Amino acid sequence: MTFAIHGLAVSRGIAIGRAVVVASSRMEVVHYFIHPEQIESEIARARSARNSVIDELRRLQEEMPKDAPGELDALLDVHLMLLQDDALAEAIRHWISDRLYNAEWALTTQLEIVSRQFDEMDDEYLRERKADLEQVVDRILRHMKGVPNPVGAPQVAPQDGVHESPLVLVAQDLSPADMLQFKSKVFAGFITAVGGKTSHTAIVARSMDIPAVVGARAASQLIRQDDWVIIDGNEGVVIVDPSPIILAEYGFRQRQNELERERLSRLRFTPSLTMDGQKVELLANIEQPGDGPAAVHAGAVGVGLFRTEFLFMGRGGNLPGEEEQYRAYREAIDGMQGMPVTIRTLDVGADKPLDKAQPKDYYLNPALGLRAIRWSLADTAMFRTQLRAILRAAAYGQIHLLFPMLAHRSEIEQTLAQLRQAQSELDMRGLPYGPVKLGAMIEIPAAALVVRTFLKYFDFLSIGTNDLIQYTLAIDRADETVAHLYDPMHPAVLRLVSEVIAAADAAGKPVCVCGEMAGDVSMTRLLLGLGLRSFSMHPAQILAVKQEILRADTQKLAPWAQQVMNSEDPAELLAP
Amino acid sequence: MTFAIHGLAVSRGIAIGRAVVVASSRMEVVHYFIHPEQIESEIARARSARNSVIDELRRLQEEMPKDAPGELDALLDVHLMLLQDDALAEAIRHWISDRLYNAEWALTTQLEIVSRQFDEMDDEYLRERKADLEQVVDRILRHMKGVPNPVGAPQVAPQDGVHESPLVLVAQDLSPADMLQFKSKVFAGFITAVGGKTSHTAIVARSMDIPAVVGARAASQLIRQDDWVIIDGNEGVVIVDPSPIILAEYGFRQRQNELERERLSRLRFTPSLTMDGQKVELLANIEQPGDGPAAVHAGAVGVGLFRTEFLFMGRGGNLPGEEEQYRAYREAIDGMQGMPVTIRTLDVGADKPLDKAQPKDYYLNPALGLRAIRWSLADTAMFRTQLRAILRAAAYGQIHLLFPMLAHRSEIEQTLAQLRQAQSELDMRGLPYGPVKLGAMIEIPAAALVVRTFLKYFDFLSIGTNDLIQYTLAIDRADETVAHLYDPMHPAVLRLVSEVIAAADAAGKPVCVCGEMAGDVSMTRLLLGLGLRSFSMHPAQILAVKQEILRADTQKLAPWAQQVMNSEDPAELLAP
Repeated sequence: MTFAIHGLAVSRGIAIGRAVVVASSRMEVVHYFIHPEQIESEIARARSARNSVIDELRRLQEEMPKDAPGELDALLDVHLMLLQDDALAEAIRHWISDRLYNAEWALTTQLEIVSRQFDEMDDEYLRERKADLEQVVDRILRHMKGVPNPVGAPQVAPQDGVHESPLVLVAQDLSPADMLQFKSKVFAGFITAVGGKTSHTAIVARSMDIPAVVGARAASQLIRQDDWVIIDGNEGVVIVDPSPIILAEYGFRQRQNELERERLSRLRFTPSLTMDGQKVELLANIEQPGDGPAAVHAGAVGVGLFRTEFLFMGRGGNLPGEEEQYRAYREAIDGMQGMPVTIRTLDVGADKPLDKAQPKDYYLNPALGLRAIRWSLADTAMFRTQLRAILRAAAYGQIHLLFPMLAHRSEIEQTLAQLRQAQSELDMRGLPYGPVKLGAMIEIPAAALVVRTFLKYFDFLSIGTNDLIQYTLAIDRADETVAHLYDPMHPAVLRLVSEVIAAADAAGKPVCVCGEMAGDVSMTRLLLGLGLRSFSMHPAQILAVKQEILRADTQKLAPWAQQVMNSEDPAELLAP
Repeated sequence: MTFAIHGLAVSRGIAIGRAVVVASSRMEVVHYFIHPEQIESEIARARSARNSVIDELRRLQEEMPKDAPGELDALLDVHLMLLQDDALAEAIRHWISDRLYNAEWALTTQLEIVSRQFDEMDDEYLRERKADLEQVVDRILRHMKGVPNPVGAPQVAPQDGVHESPLVLVAQDLSPADMLQFKSKVFAGFITAVGGKTSHTAIVARSMDIPAVVGARAASQLIRQDDWVIIDGNEGVVIVDPSPIILAEYGFRQRQNELERERLSRLRFTPSLTMDGQKVELLANIEQPGDGPAAVHAGAVGVGLFRTEFLFMGRGGNLPGEEEQYRAYREAIDGMQGMPVTIRTLDVGADKPLDKAQPKDYYLNPALGLRAIRWSLADTAMFRTQLRAILRAAAYGQIHLLFPMLAHRSEIEQTLAQLRQAQSELDMRGLPYGPVKLGAMIEIPAAALVVRTFLKYFDFLSIGTNDLIQYTLAIDRADETVAHLYDPMHPAVLRLVSEVIAAADAAGKPVCVCGEMAGDVSMTRLLLGLGLRSFSMHPAQILAVKQEILRADTQKLAPWAQQVMNSEDPAELLAP
């Protein structure tokens, strides 16, 4: 039966495919497809982890101290029973052999299916018993983490022919780590039950130019594994189990979108100049060292933001060493063929936890907590390792070094002291390193308000509009109860952005916008009018923005932008 | 054995007493002392709830659907076993009869003690089994909520003689609801394991002038029920099980503090004028309608902030009706003897949940979520009920109506539309109501940045510095990992505060500071220098601030304040 689920349209386009429903478990696991020849070893890996847990629980039971609460023994029996259940083993085998899921994915998929049986119980109490099952699965997963993957876990898409139809991903929520995994374009679309227009899922989907609908409440309950699903990313609608007529209609729309894209691609080699001859720099935001060539191909003249989180996440707490980082930064530089690469130091923390971090609910307000530069300054050994790797790579290309989340002068001074120390560590080791330009993200209201102080210390600025809007308005962009108040056109936001651009211009220092705003074509004319001449965005957005620039006349836009700035309701004036 | 735990000094003074360790459970329960004659009925209440849960689980077992996972039955058995444990019943009886705890408190205290046994297990897995026990206790507690308290639950301090020594409260964390319960001055001091200088616990303790140490990690693990404890709120140290010599030393310091307090009390009837004759308004922040007389007694000339949360919290989701609210607001007005009372509409939401709200970890960043006016505008029936009650009370005294957390012009307009609608609802019902002055809290950076828009709509402004600092710096004041970065003297914060004062002055409209800054004597001279003439704070802080005002000369402070404003490091210039 065809039915529709409504959510927020966060990334345009149409996707049609079969649903892969990812368990909304509290455990973060890696998801990848294995090769068919790995099926047996993957099943063995799952079995072996399960057997280890069984042995362990039995040993615990035997060694239980005399004064242990008597109930413990009975609880352990229940968990042993859950573990030895044949149906569980059989189901895991199915997901591995028929769908080529890795063992962790198979386990959590099955957990999700059984959990649903629990969820369907009328009684709240019975529903809650599924926690025990989750704990058992969790324990198996933890065992797997300790056991090295015997076949090397190729994190690749399945070979052609294994899946005959495209897949769309359905989840309660997707973590930044998940999105990194899924970047390899295995999925034709994303659906999540939570999240707002500016949730991480939305941002990444948009930047990858993959259709997505978020905030589709209950999607992960209502959609079953393998259901046919249409994602209409323009309207924010998900159509489940569509009829042939609906399917034909959406197939037609999908082809129209492709034609529009082709038309834009002809602008690739056109220089980025406004009608009145102003040169505008279009840079790429990238996430992986290998993303450089694609950025160049899309027309970028440099990297405005290379996020280094990929190196640190999903590694079970094993941080990357200096050599590994150095190689990654070198690869990024080499890929850009001599054009500048802006590398941002680690931006993880309370809201994008590493595996070793505290559980999610430990922090009251992770966005207001220990993250980005605060995290780096709290772990200076880790920070200097990253700085040394970047400095060494700088011997081979133009690197702009960018620090996130600075707000206090004391933090700036600590950061620069760490940099000097990293340099002298390299001097002592006699290793070559290159010069870097130093920049700060302006993404906290306090930083925007004291931008003159920042300009004394730094060579360039980069405005991170997503966080700047979030803090200026006190709105969590990922919280759908308030997402409607997250407004890039709030006059307070525009005032801060405009003041930062003006202050940087006055100081003769470059300023770039690297948040969502930079890739949003409806904002391009305003930003040009405010004097911005450097935009950094996902490569997929560059051509559409370039089209806006080619049509723009900054002579006319400047006075209009001032009108917008003086308006109490700038959005009204922005309509084209 | 004497030992010391170090934390953050958040509320000055010395307290000496016996520890009452409150269970750090995930369940929020009420804590109060019962009268000795209620012991038996309270024990019966606990027993009856437990029996109901046992009956219920048995019924569930019988009615279990055939297709239910087989493990459920075994899990239920374990929980039944936990419930019928005699040791549990005996322990609960002990806490009720010997310590006069209410049944909920007794239950969670015992849960905490048994949990500790689980926590001491070497194996992580065994430690986690305590979740089952928690679920059983949770279920009993939920039953109690449904069952009306048979003896009326007098939320009062125990009668003299029941406790021969003062008590100090030790907890993992205290919710705003807990702090409201504990306001009745039963406790001589507070210790929490988490929290920063500006956590809710710290703010309330400071405003009540009760010594407190927060961020004393592991305090609730290391301190046992009934331990003797000294809280040194000046140094941020907790001394557990002190030796007689240490005890004597701290007893001496305690008496010295009392003498200083007595000296200040002589300023009570001195008019609040600076040396150069500037009149400064000192107002009180109050939380209960009955707080008025104490505010007058402390020298307040009005109420600058009457928080109305007390009416809404800890009520299990039953919101107060118009009549109940009207009586509360009348009481507050009557208590102020004709002086103005500023009533702030409900400021709850994601970070100060009502009982009916989602569990705490539902929100990613509650401080950036659906709270305060956002919450009110999402439940307009509730909002207008409050507005009608306030308007009716305004027929009997001077009311200033204050709206929290506004940031968007659209929100302002919606709020004023709700007010007009509340007025016409009263017109239709023929009920008398009075005029009110309208004010907005300036506590979001966006609001401060567009303050001119606010001044068009409102008669007065009130700067909520706590939130304003939090958002401007992107620092959660309650998160001890970043609390050191929460800085009222950050030049960006001072710029916003100063701009708001100047804009209000220019518009000829009153502006008050009602955050922590107003009661902090180290900030008084700066705020006077920036032109502030209205301060609102807890009554206990008024006399110390008045002393600063009597010594101040605004002619000299104004140019000095400008110097501070232009400094990159204002804190340096603030040293006396």
